[in-house]
Amino acid sequence: MKVLENGTITSPSGYIASGVSCGIKKDKEAADLAFIVSEATSDCAGVFTQNLVKGHSLKYTIDCAGNGKARAILVNSGNANACVGEQGDKDAVSMAAAAAKALNCDPREVLIGSTGVIGKPLPIDKIIKGVIRAFESLSENGGHDAASAIMTTDLIKKELAVELIISGKPVRIGGIAKGSGMIHPNMATLIGLLTTDISISKTLLDKALRYSVNKSFNRITVDGDTSVCDMLLALANGRSGAHIETEDDDYIAFRDALEYVCTKLAVMIVQDGEGATKLIEIRVENAASAKDALGIALSVAKSPLVKTAFFGEDANWGRILTAAGYSGVSFDPALVDIFIGDLAVCRKGTSIRFDENKASEILKRKEISVRISLNSGKAWDRVWTCDFSYDYVKINGSYRT
Amino acid sequence: MKVLENGTITSPSGYIASGVSCGIKKDKEAADLAFIVSEATSDCAGVFTQNLVKGHSLKYTIDCAGNGKARAILVNSGNANACVGEQGDKDAVSMAAAAAKALNCDPREVLIGSTGVIGKPLPIDKIIKGVIRAFESLSENGGHDAASAIMTTDLIKKELAVELIISGKPVRIGGIAKGSGMIHPNMATLIGLLTTDISISKTLLDKALRYSVNKSFNRITVDGDTSVCDMLLALANGRSGAHIETEDDDYIAFRDALEYVCTKLAVMIVQDGEGATKLIEIRVENAASAKDALGIALSVAKSPLVKTAFFGEDANWGRILTAAGYSGVSFDPALVDIFIGDLAVCRKGTSIRFDENKASEILKRKEISVRISLNSGKAWDRVWTCDFSYDYVKINGSYRT
Repeated sequence: MKVLENGTITSPSGYIASGVSCGIKKDKEAADLAFIVSEATSDCAGVFTQNLVKGHSLKYTIDCAGNGKARAILVNSGNANACVGEQGDKDAVSMAAAAAKALNCDPREVLIGSTGVIGKPLPIDKIIKGVIRAFESLSENGGHDAASAIMTTDLIKKELAVELIISGKPVRIGGIAKGSGMIHPNMATLIGLLTTDISISKTLLDKALRYSVNKSFNRITVDGDTSVCDMLLALANGRSGAHIETEDDDYIAFRDALEYVCTKLAVMIVQDGEGATKLIEIRVENAASAKDALGIALSVAKSPLVKTAFFGEDANWGRILTAAGYSGVSFDPALVDIFIGDLAVCRKGTSIRFDENKASEILKRKEISVRISLNSGKAWDRVWTCDFSYDYVKINGSYRT
Repeated sequence: MKVLENGTITSPSGYIASGVSCGIKKDKEAADLAFIVSEATSDCAGVFTQNLVKGHSLKYTIDCAGNGKARAILVNSGNANACVGEQGDKDAVSMAAAAAKALNCDPREVLIGSTGVIGKPLPIDKIIKGVIRAFESLSENGGHDAASAIMTTDLIKKELAVELIISGKPVRIGGIAKGSGMIHPNMATLIGLLTTDISISKTLLDKALRYSVNKSFNRITVDGDTSVCDMLLALANGRSGAHIETEDDDYIAFRDALEYVCTKLAVMIVQDGEGATKLIEIRVENAASAKDALGIALSVAKSPLVKTAFFGEDANWGRILTAAGYSGVSFDPALVDIFIGDLAVCRKGTSIRFDENKASEILKRKEISVRISLNSGKAWDRVWTCDFSYDYVKINGSYRT
């Protein structure tokens, strides 16, 4: 498998995309409508937010994705389509219909998404006009523009593509994602869009996607909040000529490549977490079970006190042990070792002398790994998080108005 | 029941207290050792952190409080006694022994607490010397000094006393508390110390305390973190001459007064939450069950996105509904009404037009009530929280070093 230079969602064969501005965002020039189109009808799979409250566009897409077939994905940013009553459902249908009309396809083959402020009706007329321009702008290199157009508080574009050989044929997987705040695992988070030119059944695509999401997007947290519009969609159009029919070695290779793409995109989201200055991997090792490892990793990754300590570059391992202690997981604190980077800071649940200069040097880095060894088994898991800074407060204290 | 002017933990009869400095805190002049003594051996009850990791001083006190008898409480601030191995257990015994020696009582009748940074051994020599000065400083008006001496990142002293008449006799309940960060309900939070001069069995005192804590200290959140040293202790020395022997009307009157004191102290903690600029009551009404109401209230109260929106004085009710949606409680979003103060901002799960000026006026207040009506039952509950500001990050980014 190789990572493609400048790879994006249009890197796999048979996909075109665009990103245009239709005037939804405050900055009227900013791209806010992403359109991704497969030349042929594709198999599709998706995972969606587990939040009880679900946006209107999301509900439409959950319903359509159930058919397992899709031609296109249309996503607007700058305004969610959530909590606005019947109008929201109508607007969802209108969005999909406008795209379907341009493509001359069944509206139920257009998957849609809307992300941004909740509770404000979509400026649907602007979007419908925008669809025409988005259609006219579709190109084989349009993935980059689509990646820009789904951004909300994101500061960096998140896109990637890889290539692997299956049955002697080059197969590509490309993806774009957006998300910066309201990030926490709950089956799905944020918006992530993936394309591939392999031919694979909906069932296997779904299986590979769930496997990959579980190891990537479900292993990141920015603030513990999960949104009402989160979704991850994958399209497979078969244009590479390679097929996967059973769970053989080819499937494993494809699934692992998909996991790679998902993990890279997920980590980009944490690195670009609202106000984030550091990427922190919380790795829990030697646990009695994988569930225990994950429970502790999430509790530590989510703790505002741990996250502010990292922002302050403070080796406050007591907060790490404390967060493990209230995770609900049963373990023996007297067996716990904690490492920040390579530096042991706690042995057998007890403070040890460590070189504060070394700690300070590690904590200044942009990427930090924390290892918590429970010394009571062989299971492990990991979660990526970011630090909690002034800017998180700034960004979120004045988002809506 | 009346609230006593200038009331504190020494307002009930037969209690003396002091707060002295023994040089634990960075500010060497700051009081850091609180001593509260009952003239006679008291009945006692306590609730303690549910964190799996427990401090050494806390473990000592859990053990001793089990006897149901206590003469005194000794608490140092500026340094927790947690995660330091065997030395921590020895230091706990030494602290209690020093106080018992001064008082000429059984060391197991001295309950102790230590709060501050985790993982640093106590400066036990300083504390033992301090105990002598604390003993010499004991006075009937010493509750105020004790309230100062338990503070860590607290900005305001938290103390209160009330008086009620039971069997024709005036009975008093006094209390002090500390806590500002690492605050979240988990049976007990923070450090709270209560005294009363009623005579009541350990069993009934325990029952009244758990009832009160559940409605007060277990209904507040600052950051969702729970500490390894949290405890709430109550002493009853019988000096008022009034007795409670069964769960009669007198018991109810006493319990309700205790709940009042606990609630006032709990709300003071939220108001003084790290970086807090606003006190926010999240009230969930018309729920199918009290458990549902509490689950939603806690989820909303804990959401960083909700808390930063209040800091930014932004009527972002979408975040409130979102946090309700991921609370794990099953409810119908289409029935939900949301009010900020008296202003309806969401009806039947859908946005409504509201006066942004009125919203802005309400959001500028120091105390704000949010009502979430589920319209699916008659149960309710409430949780107090605070907003999330730059200063929370500042305080916690540089706490240890």
